[in-house]
Amino acid sequence: MSSRTSDPKQLFAAAQQGDRASLARLLSLIERGGDDAREIGRLSYPLIGNAYTVGITGAPGAGKSTLTSAVITHLRKSQVKVAVLAIDPSSPFTGGAILGDRVRMQDHATDDGVFIRSMATRGHLGGLSLATSEAMRMLDAVQYPLVLVETVGVGQVEVEIAGKADTTVVVVNPGWGDSVQANKAGLMEIADVFVINKADRKGVAETKRDLEQMLELSDFAHDAWTPPIIATVGTTGEGVGELWTAVEQHRQSITASGEIVSRRNARLRLEMRSIIERRLEHRAREICTGSKWDALETDVIARSIDPWSAADQMLEGIGA
Amino acid sequence: MSSRTSDPKQLFAAAQQGDRASLARLLSLIERGGDDAREIGRLSYPLIGNAYTVGITGAPGAGKSTLTSAVITHLRKSQVKVAVLAIDPSSPFTGGAILGDRVRMQDHATDDGVFIRSMATRGHLGGLSLATSEAMRMLDAVQYPLVLVETVGVGQVEVEIAGKADTTVVVVNPGWGDSVQANKAGLMEIADVFVINKADRKGVAETKRDLEQMLELSDFAHDAWTPPIIATVGTTGEGVGELWTAVEQHRQSITASGEIVSRRNARLRLEMRSIIERRLEHRAREICTGSKWDALETDVIARSIDPWSAADQMLEGIGA
Repeated sequence: MSSRTSDPKQLFAAAQQGDRASLARLLSLIERGGDDAREIGRLSYPLIGNAYTVGITGAPGAGKSTLTSAVITHLRKSQVKVAVLAIDPSSPFTGGAILGDRVRMQDHATDDGVFIRSMATRGHLGGLSLATSEAMRMLDAVQYPLVLVETVGVGQVEVEIAGKADTTVVVVNPGWGDSVQANKAGLMEIADVFVINKADRKGVAETKRDLEQMLELSDFAHDAWTPPIIATVGTTGEGVGELWTAVEQHRQSITASGEIVSRRNARLRLEMRSIIERRLEHRAREICTGSKWDALETDVIARSIDPWSAADQMLEGIGA
Repeated sequence: MSSRTSDPKQLFAAAQQGDRASLARLLSLIERGGDDAREIGRLSYPLIGNAYTVGITGAPGAGKSTLTSAVITHLRKSQVKVAVLAIDPSSPFTGGAILGDRVRMQDHATDDGVFIRSMATRGHLGGLSLATSEAMRMLDAVQYPLVLVETVGVGQVEVEIAGKADTTVVVVNPGWGDSVQANKAGLMEIADVFVINKADRKGVAETKRDLEQMLELSDFAHDAWTPPIIATVGTTGEGVGELWTAVEQHRQSITASGEIVSRRNARLRLEMRSIIERRLEHRAREICTGSKWDALETDVIARSIDPWSAADQMLEGIGA
């Protein structure tokens, strides 16, 4: 069944039949962007809506990959088919973190019910964000009922990526305080379930109290769902069953309330805006090159034209 | 001489004659953006190039305003005319930080040789960044020989603003370590002079050693200029003379090497790109509204069209 084609249509048909090599190639095309990625998007789009997506995020070193691996082990006991996207915004493909992920997850390498793929970018984070949405939809379209997205929770775009899932699990460690200080607010906002991983270390009770206090002070206090706080040890699998029960409970809660639909629609709207922004950014980069641009730069530096009027000249004819 | 006009040309002419009320009104127009701001830009642009600009930045609470006030006191001993822009990216105009700044700087309120103005934004940080450049040029054009720009050094855009000056002073405190962890790299990159302010507290020697180590590990090791590290106490003025000597030495160094020209030109190129990006972003916001947009959103959510094709339809005719 495995095919050497690079035609998105043929690859998509093969992936629908369960061909993993085609699936991997589709993800590479999505990662690369451009026309092939958009063709895959068009093929996927009418077929989506059946997968449930779970994001797993947290600071570097929080043990996300090990925990994700333990979650897979737990799910496979009941034969659930699962796809995992490990997103690494900062590393190019050859980076150590990606290799690290693969090592930690290699327990599942021979399991046909598990598909694991790393995604990264050499370029714009916005591109990776859009590629992640597209990859999640494609995995949905080729009938993975469950898609896990693991990503580091540092920086605005990374948190945005982590928030693309139906349920988002935020992983912290005992004594997490300072390491994620800068990003606490962003992580608090997207958390549906908190995990204190490496709970065999000191400070679990204090960290739990910290989180509870933050939850009390936050908007969650008035919501139908308050994020539960689960203690886990990823390396032994301790607490992972409880974590998954919490994810399932969140799923039931947002399904019953209809929030799952409004969340998914809100994400789509955001994505449409992102696509348009990205296209215009791309256009800006095109505009800021070439001989006309060089000449205007020289004129601005020579002060024979001001920067605003120079921009006017460059933007002539594109309606901006 | 003070005039109640809001015509940029008249205000500009009055400001050139030294009218401070007109100067304040020009800065408000720049802050607001739009056509008046651009008109001011056009008036200023042919007249710039005489002012020297000094950025003062650091973490919140590092004592930047007090230090800036002490620098002004020092400069006024030799009658140097000075303009100060206090940039507060996060606070809207009525915010506490702005009032705080003004209180700290009110020693100079009755001094005709000192012009102090706060700038903030309710909107896009990119807008504030461009407005800051424009304000710096306008102060140059109306013949302030020295423009100080004080801004909080948190976040990428804030650091970008702080880096718009000819000489950038980065203010830290004894035991600064954790408070600026997230942003150390960005601050290290733009620092021409380091100040350890509040040097009457414990830990000055350790902080100095920390900074020296970072400098050794950084690219500075091979540069013509290595940022000196000056200890100051803003509240008493201790070390402020030494700080200003370091600023003057940096100025001489980059003037002698010609780096001042290449830096200024590089900033102008960046600014031209920013203007074009901003204009296209503005266009994107315009595009993502209206009945055509609403209809496409509905279609995407109903899955009758994919997000990429919807974006194509919205972008038709604007060449992106």
